[in-house]
Amino acid sequence: MSERIPVSLTRNPYEILVEQGALNRIGEFLAPLKLGPRCALITDSNVNALYGKIVTEALEKAGYHVSLLVVPAGESSKCMAQAEKLCDGMINAGLDRTSFVAALGGGVVGDLAGFVAAIYYRGIPCIQIPTTVVSQVDSAIGGKTGVNATEGKNLIGAFHQPSFVLADPETLTTLPAREFNEGMAEVIKHAVIRDAGMLDALTCPATESLIARNVKIKAAIVAEDEFERHGLRALLNFGHTIGHAIENAAGYGRFLHGEAISLGLVAALNLSVKKAGLSLAESERVVNALRAFSLPTQLPSDLTTPDLMDALRKDKKFVSGSIRFVLTEKLGSAFVSKDITEDDIREAIEQLR
Amino acid sequence: MSERIPVSLTRNPYEILVEQGALNRIGEFLAPLKLGPRCALITDSNVNALYGKIVTEALEKAGYHVSLLVVPAGESSKCMAQAEKLCDGMINAGLDRTSFVAALGGGVVGDLAGFVAAIYYRGIPCIQIPTTVVSQVDSAIGGKTGVNATEGKNLIGAFHQPSFVLADPETLTTLPAREFNEGMAEVIKHAVIRDAGMLDALTCPATESLIARNVKIKAAIVAEDEFERHGLRALLNFGHTIGHAIENAAGYGRFLHGEAISLGLVAALNLSVKKAGLSLAESERVVNALRAFSLPTQLPSDLTTPDLMDALRKDKKFVSGSIRFVLTEKLGSAFVSKDITEDDIREAIEQLR
Repeated sequence: MSERIPVSLTRNPYEILVEQGALNRIGEFLAPLKLGPRCALITDSNVNALYGKIVTEALEKAGYHVSLLVVPAGESSKCMAQAEKLCDGMINAGLDRTSFVAALGGGVVGDLAGFVAAIYYRGIPCIQIPTTVVSQVDSAIGGKTGVNATEGKNLIGAFHQPSFVLADPETLTTLPAREFNEGMAEVIKHAVIRDAGMLDALTCPATESLIARNVKIKAAIVAEDEFERHGLRALLNFGHTIGHAIENAAGYGRFLHGEAISLGLVAALNLSVKKAGLSLAESERVVNALRAFSLPTQLPSDLTTPDLMDALRKDKKFVSGSIRFVLTEKLGSAFVSKDITEDDIREAIEQLR
Repeated sequence: MSERIPVSLTRNPYEILVEQGALNRIGEFLAPLKLGPRCALITDSNVNALYGKIVTEALEKAGYHVSLLVVPAGESSKCMAQAEKLCDGMINAGLDRTSFVAALGGGVVGDLAGFVAAIYYRGIPCIQIPTTVVSQVDSAIGGKTGVNATEGKNLIGAFHQPSFVLADPETLTTLPAREFNEGMAEVIKHAVIRDAGMLDALTCPATESLIARNVKIKAAIVAEDEFERHGLRALLNFGHTIGHAIENAAGYGRFLHGEAISLGLVAALNLSVKKAGLSLAESERVVNALRAFSLPTQLPSDLTTPDLMDALRKDKKFVSGSIRFVLTEKLGSAFVSKDITEDDIREAIEQLR
């Protein structure tokens, strides 16, 4: 019951295939794309151990020459030095402007390898093969690629749409529980902003249909607002403003991204109750969904409010000092508010304690 | 007698202003662009000493908040580490997605700062203020930005069109003679591929009209083939295939870029005589123009042919091993040939001795 979901962009449309067990047939799906003969398969040390060989063989079987490039697992690989190292590795492997990148892994690999594809020879095609919940339902779709600056997360990057995305839900069964759960934070976010009914359809393990349902939400939003200019794509930031600040202030590594986002979601729900008329019952329904996946909903006491406010001010979403904050007035819909003040945010953070 | 030359791109059209003495009025020209309030003025140590203050004041006078970022002069600044350092500097200076970059300097600064603009917050506007012949007639126009990989020049980058280009020919009067002359190699290349009559209009110092004449050639080609897909933009590579190989094999710093290109032009002319029916007299006319600006036309004996052939194979213009080589059959026009073999190139290199 596989699904093919189009991302209907004018300049560079592409498809996302969601199919249980399709990983070892990845090569078959690439023929219509008329890619060049050489491919850099970029993955991390964890994912390589699980799926590196399977994907290499699937690509080779389809006639591609594969150069496997493995980065250390973890957020610290998402940096300029690693991007440069990958470019140098690709040059040494003889890859040129007709070659393509295949990104096999979670968000870090997808963002990093996507960025490398964006800047190698000023841009070559990229295939995304996400293997985590977060990357399958979110980060592999939409062309946001990048690395972290020393001074802030995700501040360096490029819009570079993939040419194809293959999401195989079977890969999610090998995820540690904590990583599976963090992905559910993004799923729950999608439910809040677009599809409240999905809150009753959350499952572990994730089904093909749950992944596809999320992919459709992300794909539709990206198709309507590729470069985040019309405000629609900004709705995907629900929970992320405070979530990123928490992630940043806690020091990377303490919370997984989705765990910090879980806290950010709770704060955004609280602000929505206060400022947008969201009912307490609806807010509670979402918080319970987060708890069902063991996601944090209470802030550790050592994270001080001033530290979080400082981290907040470094966020990309602060446009020249003012705050654009996503709220929901009713589950299943969201909007960008300009009425949230720093004091409101400070209060929402206090409410998380 | 200033000239405004449009680059007529569908998505991101912009203008190039060529005007003697306009540098200290740069701020005035930016109002129609509706840029944000903050600007990173990126330049190098040499250019900063000459024009940093003038341009900073001109921008501030127009109401922009300027953060001056100075990189060491020279090709070695054109690297990923420097790009990252600039991004970090911009974050620390409080620049965000509404800010813009102004690139003040020659090709290195323009390529580097343009690349930083392309990847900062996934792309912010860039103003190019070229101060060398090469950058005014060539590199500041057309959106090719990038840095060098450890393993090869210009292999990392992005297409990122500037929002405005200001070329003030007065800045060329402070160029050392050798740097002025290297720029004339690109001017002479333009003459060969598009405007043979210009060979009779070469002057030192360069006039506003000579710069504008070259800008028009580059702008027209870029407008027709922004991403170098239709072969037209590739014509600008006349002389560059062998030129880059010479630059690379000689070790960066020995030849200036334009000096290596001069040798590449002579080789391409020789190949054009042999393979495209260019007359010896026409070829000689171009070689004499190069000599008139003290540009090299003979290869030093220590640069061996095998080394040059090795360097050649690393060139971006080698698409999966085959060679696309630009030839001229008649001065003022050029075409991409697929008939040039490695043996032809080897012979052309030998002919340079």
